[in-house]
Formats: sequence, structure tokens, C-alpha cells
Amino acid sequence: MKINCDLGEGLGLWQMGQDEHIMPYIDMANIACGFHASDPVTIATTLELAKQHNLTIGAHPSYPDLVGFGRRSMQLSKLELIKAIQYQVSALYGMSQIHGLQMSYVKPHGALYNDMMKNVEIFENICHAIKEIPHQLTLVIQALPDNQAFIDLANKYQISLQFEAFIDRHYQDNGLLVSRTNANASINELDLIKHRSQQLKTKGTIQSLNGVELNMKIDTLCIHGDHPLAVEIAKTVRQELNA
Amino acid sequence: MKINCDLGEGLGLWQMGQDEHIMPYIDMANIACGFHASDPVTIATTLELAKQHNLTIGAHPSYPDLVGFGRRSMQLSKLELIKAIQYQVSALYGMSQIHGLQMSYVKPHGALYNDMMKNVEIFENICHAIKEIPHQLTLVIQALPDNQAFIDLANKYQISLQFEAFIDRHYQDNGLLVSRTNANASINELDLIKHRSQQLKTKGTIQSLNGVELNMKIDTLCIHGDHPLAVEIAKTVRQELNA
Amino acid sequence: MKINCDLGEGLGLWQMGQDEHIMPYIDMANIACGFHASDPVTIATTLELAKQHNLTIGAHPSYPDLVGFGRRSMQLSKLELIKAIQYQVSALYGMSQIHGLQMSYVKPHGALYNDMMKNVEIFENICHAIKEIPHQLTLVIQALPDNQAFIDLANKYQISLQFEAFIDRHYQDNGLLVSRTNANASINELDLIKHRSQQLKTKGTIQSLNGVELNMKIDTLCIHGDHPLAVEIAKTVRQELNA
Amino acid sequence: MKINCDLGEGLGLWQMGQDEHIMPYIDMANIACGFHASDPVTIATTLELAKQHNLTIGAHPSYPDLVGFGRRSMQLSKLELIKAIQYQVSALYGMSQIHGLQMSYVKPHGALYNDMMKNVEIFENICHAIKEIPHQLTLVIQALPDNQAFIDLANKYQISLQFEAFIDRHYQDNGLLVSRTNANASINELDLIKHRSQQLKTKGTIQSLNGVELNMKIDTLCIHGDHPLAVEIAKTVRQELNA
Repeated sequence: MKINCDLGEGLGLWQMGQDEHIMPYIDMANIACGFHASDPVTIATTLELAKQHNLTIGAHPSYPDLVGFGRRSMQLSKLELIKAIQYQVSALYGMSQIHGLQMSYVKPHGALYNDMMKNVEIFENICHAIKEIPHQLTLVIQALPDNQAFIDLANKYQISLQFEAFIDRHYQDNGLLVSRTNANASINELDLIKHRSQQLKTKGTIQSLNGVELNMKIDTLCIHGDHPLAVEIAKTVRQELNA
Repeated sequence: MKINCDLGEGLGLWQMGQDEHIMPYIDMANIACGFHASDPVTIATTLELAKQHNLTIGAHPSYPDLVGFGRRSMQLSKLELIKAIQYQVSALYGMSQIHGLQMSYVKPHGALYNDMMKNVEIFENICHAIKEIPHQLTLVIQALPDNQAFIDLANKYQISLQFEAFIDRHYQDNGLLVSRTNANASINELDLIKHRSQQLKTKGTIQSLNGVELNMKIDTLCIHGDHPLAVEIAKTVRQELNA
Repeated sequence: MKINCDLGEGLGLWQMGQDEHIMPYIDMANIACGFHASDPVTIATTLELAKQHNLTIGAHPSYPDLVGFGRRSMQLSKLELIKAIQYQVSALYGMSQIHGLQMSYVKPHGALYNDMMKNVEIFENICHAIKEIPHQLTLVIQALPDNQAFIDLANKYQISLQFEAFIDRHYQDNGLLVSRTNANASINELDLIKHRSQQLKTKGTIQSLNGVELNMKIDTLCIHGDHPLAVEIAKTVRQELNA
Repeated sequence: MKINCDLGEGLGLWQMGQDEHIMPYIDMANIACGFHASDPVTIATTLELAKQHNLTIGAHPSYPDLVGFGRRSMQLSKLELIKAIQYQVSALYGMSQIHGLQMSYVKPHGALYNDMMKNVEIFENICHAIKEIPHQLTLVIQALPDNQAFIDLANKYQISLQFEAFIDRHYQDNGLLVSRTNANASINELDLIKHRSQQLKTKGTIQSLNGVELNMKIDTLCIHGDHPLAVEIAKTVRQELNA
């Protein structure tokens, strides 16, 4: 099971996250493309750092909204959404080539990610966008107890999916995340992170906040780079997965 | 000799130029990449149109300045300039692939173009940027009576140059353009355009405003899409070159 | 009854509408503030032109979305919306003072306008934003057969409303506009515009597409500056209102 | 003598500086207006914080360049520069009114500040811009051993100047700052900051790196909020000035 993290989310002088301290513990770098964060120099710097740590490179496209960090839904038309994704993925793909890397997947960012999981039309438009890009890119989406509808649509567009779970977030019994408006949304205890990692490794399950054992196909674990304990969490998860 | 034109310079609902009316008469489409003009949908629409007219595709990167349309010099650092160009070229290259096209050259836009012709460091940084892109792209610069310094530097970076002349602009005796601050800068008589095209074809020369015959290596003629007679000029030049 | 029009919606070199040709026939200039269109120079130019034509000046704030021209809904938080409006109104208010004018009203633009008419929370946030601005600004909203809910909320914030109707758009029987996705949305016959203007002046009513006579309190008529016949429509409406 | 600091230079989620920890020790808040940093919510938050600390409010306008943080020179036309300043000052002035404050001065930011000190035309355009704003704003510029040329021009536009010195930067013998490209540019010893503050208070002079005593009219001391010791420096200077 791979660990992924959103990286390269600074903008010019503005910093975000602790990329170089997290990279030693992860496998997949979801790199911002310039629409919710980042700029050409930041992309290049992030790619170089990811290269040093042998990370798999993915594009992390977003709605076009720097001030809102891509966390505000925007009603783009089908064509606007498809082309916005293709532009960002193309930019990052080319930049990764320049740095001697081969980008291999796409993980939508923020509000676009949430909208994709809630709105099948947006998910289909994202598949459509990726299918037209001639590089066999996979798409990372959220692992759910039942992902079949997503798999069927992705098959229609010949897109391979990767399912991610959130090791630093609490789950509801139905397999959805506890909303961030809830005080219990985020997990801040490293012991619990450790325990969850062990359970994922040995039993392949995640426990909900109420204690329900959730059985989901999980390919990769996401660690939020802006979590105050992000580096510690990454280190803990890595140790448990490697143990 | 090829005819090139700056295209795809709208932004969202805002239009610029008369792309579809000029495309029938030209060979090379310099397509805006989103930094001085254009957006993902406009890029896609422009690429489709260029495909229908069998145009050669080039990237038209700029300083990052939408409000100023890339016509204001900006003091970017070497790294900022290189990465800004690579980001834009990568975006357009990937988008062209998605539309079944292969982008083959780069022509800097506006203030960046002017700065490149005046400042050898900027020219060298642009060569550096292009050399790192693994697609054998050529670079379009202005034809001068003596281009040797540019050729030598480009050779250092193994970049092939294409030299362009301006069929709709008057020249000084030294081979530089008459400044736009001068009332005589632009040529508005189709007869003169026709005559200049004939002279270029038969003798390979351009006459300065004062009557000096300029001998320059010219690979391509640029037509300004925002010239009020742009379509008529394109048609005239095409007819003379084909005659 | 006043005629209003959205103006100053260019961006840098990009033009939109025919401001100087419409201004002679209208009373109120809804001036873009830089979030969906315009820039400081365009604002200044538009204010000067509006001053020459003795127009009443209003701010035309929008969601922050240049590429989408403010026509795409964005999920701003309450604070983001309030401050986005106050920033835009402040910028335009100050600029109008510099040009010797006194801005007096606010008319939200595009998706923000539509969201305000559909979502009472957004309407209330807009009232909240305007109430905090110490300049006694009125708010322009759409005239409906029953506007009481809007009036009550506006009273709570001590905001005076102005109700606008659309002389160049067809109405449904319920007083809402025929959607732009419908071929019948826009009115392109000057005779019909003339007839509607007369009916509004003499009877104070608008006829729906199906012939239902709609009785609405109307303070101002909006003319869409991007209508192909915008200037002719403005001239026609002005003549009928003045007759 | 007043202490001033550039504040409110975050953008959305991106933080910059330690505003709330520096504010207790300073007098004047130079607040970013949205062109090199900040957004409407950040401006509002900064104004509230400044209000709590009873700070004098100034606008900190910049070239339009978020990615470059306003640190890259841009060749704006005279009209573009004047209107860019007026737009930013208007936005901040109105926002300050909404928060019950009265903005009273302007301090240009970054490359615009540097260009203003090097290029008399740019300084004059800034004076021109401020003169047209009907709020009697003063202009903060760098204190030099001989400021007469600036004073004469400012008088022409009836602008009052405030002269600032940099307590955390080393000076050349000619009264200019040691360039940031020099390792000695910044002062990192609190003892030296303390000594310089005492000398300024008692003798009104600053010592150059080579020991030359510089006699300059100084109204305000600038502390760089992004200096690693910014809070300590502010505290030290405040204590010495109050002693």
C-alpha cells in the first residue's frame, strides 16, 4: 500500500506544508499545477525534490481559484472542466519530462475532488478528460465500501482507478469521512494512527468513529500535508507499513 | 517562405483578432498559452481550428501579465523565466497532443520577444529553457541583417532558429523596425504589401522606409492579427507567395 | 423609469460591448470592479465616459472569476462574499470620487446576481455587506410579481432596493425570465421592444411569452450591452420612455 | 519617531509574517491591497487587528504581480501606474472606513518602492496619483542624506512626505542600503539594533557599515516583518524609543 501526499502547494514566496520533511516517508507526490496553488518555479523545485526521493509523480489539478485554494466549488461547464484538467495535467506532464520524470496519475484537488465523489457527471467529465490524454494515466479517487458505480464508469473510459483512504481522518459508519465541521474530523493521536495502520496492513480494514469495521479496497493512504503532525504521521504510517 | 500569425489571443468571452478568417492564408499558428491571453477552452478551440487548416503549431509564451497582454517588460529572474516558458510550452504541447497535433516551435510574445532581441541574456535563457524540453523545438526570432550572434548562442544550446520578417511593418535602414510610436510604423496599403511580397519572393530583400534594400535571411513572414486589414494582408501575401 | 446597463466590462486590450454608443440613451452605469472584468485603467476610462453622459454610477461586483466572466457560481463563505463585495465597492467608490463622481448603488453581476435571487442567504449577505459601507448605497435586484420577502430582509438591513426588469428578455408567466437555454430567451425585434416600452410606460406591466400581463413594481430597465442590437434597443426604449 | 511594518501580506490560506506578534510594538500598519499579496478577507482581518492595536493605517500598493510578490519591476505606462495605485488605495481606504478606521498614508511596495527611489518619473506619477485622491494622504519614502529633489516634486503636487529609515538593514556611506545580494545587508544582532535605536533617538543619526555617521531626516523606522527576528527587533526598537 502506497502513501500519497499533496505537495508543491506554495505560491511564489508563500510556503505551504513541509514537503522536504514528508517526502522521505511517502511514495506518491500529488503535485499542484498552478490553478489552486504553485507556479512554474515551485513546480520545478517540487519535481526535483520528488525525484531525489524517488516518488511517483501525479498531477493534482483544481478549479481555477488561487485565493480560495481550490476549496470552493465552481460551476464549470463540461468543456471548461475537461480543458482545465487537460491544461494542468499537460503542464505538469511536460514539466516532469523536463526533470527526467514520468508523471503517471491524476488526483483532483479540494472542491473538485469532493464534487467528483458526489456528482457522477463531474466524475465522468474527469474520466473523459484523462482518456483524451495519450499517457495512460490512472485516476485516484476515494475508497468507499461500494465503489462499483465509479469502476463501471471508469471502465467505460478505459481509466484505471486507484482508491485512497485517509489515515488521519475519522470515518462515519457508511464509509464517508466525518465532516471537517465536526470536532472529531481529524485524528491527532499518533498511537491511533499507528493502530489504524496496523489494522489496515493486517486486516485491510478501517474502523469508523463508532467502531464499525469498514471493508474497502484501498490502494493508497493519503496524508494531509497541512496537518500539524503531518511529518510524524507520515513517519508512523511508513514504519507500520514497512514493519 | 511560411506565413505565421499570433492566434488564440482571446480570454474567456473576450475576443481578439479574426482567427478563422486568417487561418486559410497562413502556415504557422503561434498559439497563446494562458500567460498573456487565452485559457484552456480557448486553446482547445484554437487548436481544433488550426488542425482544420493544417497549420504548423507553435507555442507563444509570454511574461505572466493578462491585464497588460504581455506587452510590459517584467524583471524575472533567470529561473523564473526558464520555468515560465517551460510551463507554458508544456501546457500547449500536451494540449496539442490531445488534439492530435504535434507542436514544433516556440515564438516568444510581446515584451518577452522584444527583450529577447535586445538582451542577449534573456535570449540565452530562452534557449536554455527550450533545450531542456525533450521535443526538438525550434525558436522563431526576428530576422536582422546580421543574426550571427544569435545563431552562435543558439548553436551552443543546439537550438535551430527560424527568422521572421514583418510584412506589415516599415523598417529602418539598420534592419530594425520603425517604432510603433512613429506614425509610419505600420503599413496600411495593400498595394505596398503586394509589392513587398513580390520583392521578397524574387530578390529575397525588404526595402526600408528610406529605400535601402535590406538583405536578410528570412524563413517566415509575420502578419499581425490585430491589424485592421489583417485578413486582406494575409490573403495578399499568400497570393503573391503562391504566384 | 431609469435605464441601466452593465458597462466597463473590457479587460486591458480586450473590448466588451459598445459603451460609448449606449451611454447617450441610458441613465445608470453598472460599472465592473475588476473581479469578473475591468482593470484600473478601464474603470477610469468608463467613469470619465459616464461623467460626460451624466450617468448615475453604480458598482457591479462579482465573484472573483475573470476567465468565467463572473458567470460561474462559486461557493464563497459568508465572510468571503461580504468582503469580496466590500472590496470591489470600495475600489469603485474611491475611483468615482477621484473622477468627481459619487457612486450611489450596487448591482451584483452574473452568477452572483442569479444566486442572490435564488438563495435568500446570499441576498442577506449582500445586504449585510452593503449596510456596513457608510455611503447609503441602494441595491438593484430583479423585479418579481412578489418581492415582499426581499423587501422585508432589505428593511432589516436598512437597505433601499431598486427593482429592475429586462426589456430585451422574454418572461415566463410566473414573472421569471425565460432561460437562456431556450431559443426564445432574448428579444431581437425592435418593434416588440418598442411595444413593451409603451406598455410599461402606460400600464406599468410586462407581457409574458404566453401573453400573461405581469404587474410588477419596476424602477429601472436593464439593457444587455452584449445584445447584438444593444444600441438600437437602448435608443428605442429611451425614445418611448421620453415620448 | 514612529515604527512601521508591512502587514497583511498573506493570501487566502497562505501566511506571511507574524502580524499579531509585531503589532503590539509598532505604530503604523502598511497594509497590502491585493496586487502583490492579500485578498478581501485578509485585508479585513488585518484591519481589525490593526484597530485593536490602535495603529495608524496606510495603503501598501504594488505592481500587479502576486506570483512575484511585487518584487519584479514592471514597465507600466504612466496611466497604468496612476490608476493601479488609485484602485488599490481606494479599495483599502473604503475597507478601512467599513472597519471604523481612517487610512492616512501610502507606502509603495517592493519593486515599485525601489523604482520610485531610482526613477524620478515614477515618483512623480505616484505623487500625481495620490494628489487626485481627495483624502490628504501622505507618502512614505526612503530617508536619504539629501531628499531635496523628492521634497520639491512632492511640494509641486502638495503631497507631504514621511521619511523612513531601515533599522534592520546596513547602510552604505552614501546613505543607500547595502544591497541584499551582499551578505552584510541585513542586521541580525539585537544588541546592534538596540545601539542603533539609541543613537537614532539621542543623536538622530545612523552609522554606515563603514562607520560613517549619516545625518538624515527620519520620521519613521521600518521593520521587515519577514526578518527571522522581526518580533524581537520590533520589541527592542520600541523599548529604546520609549526609554
